[in-house]
Amino acid sequence: MQQDQLTTTFAALADPTRRAILARLASGETSVTELAEPFEMSLPAISKHLKVLERAGLIARGREAQYRPCRLEAGPLKDVAKWIEHYRRFWEQSFDRLEEYLREVQKKEKKNARDKHRRN
Amino acid sequence: MQQDQLTTTFAALADPTRRAILARLASGETSVTELAEPFEMSLPAISKHLKVLERAGLIARGREAQYRPCRLEAGPLKDVAKWIEHYRRFWEQSFDRLEEYLREVQKKEKKNARDKHRRN
Repeated sequence: MQQDQLTTTFAALADPTRRAILARLASGETSVTELAEPFEMSLPAISKHLKVLERAGLIARGREAQYRPCRLEAGPLKDVAKWIEHYRRFWEQSFDRLEEYLREVQKKEKKNARDKHRRN
Repeated sequence: MQQDQLTTTFAALADPTRRAILARLASGETSVTELAEPFEMSLPAISKHLKVLERAGLIARGREAQYRPCRLEAGPLKDVAKWIEHYRRFWEQSFDRLEEYLREVQKKEKKNARDKHRRN
């Protein structure tokens, strides 16, 4: 079964090592050896993660046989950002509700102040 | 091994049926039976997907024994949006480069026009 692109992207991102690799590549392209250094992982283990990222189109690798630098490819991340944008109103809603409540409180306070003023 | 929240969220989103469930819930809370209708899937299969979404905190379910409506919970999506924001400059970069190029072309054209004017 062929996976759709978003599913492939999300699956590739569902791993802390792979997200750390992307974060590292965000500061510039680098070789696999350099990339592997901060991780307590064998080169083959890192290579496996790179293959997942490459298949998802999240990284690209140079063509030189010996030194094949990895670099970030942001296209699939843009699609994730677009997808998630549809849900923004849901996490901003709770904020909206608070704002509305504060406006209501303010209105009531003004009314009370006016009424008090009239009575005096 | 306990998974970090982002990994759990991405893993939950790495499935087209689960994303379709979230899209459905974006237009209002609903029962599992209603939710299952558009999918060619058994109720137990849908329930399994709901459990994954619930464990990831992407949906919540009512407490009534018979009718347990599902509703969207957007907190984890907000975290994904925050995570992805760090990479925005990468997909906007190619646009920036085009803009820069167009500015350069415009500058050169203006200069050429000025030079031509002076020669005449």
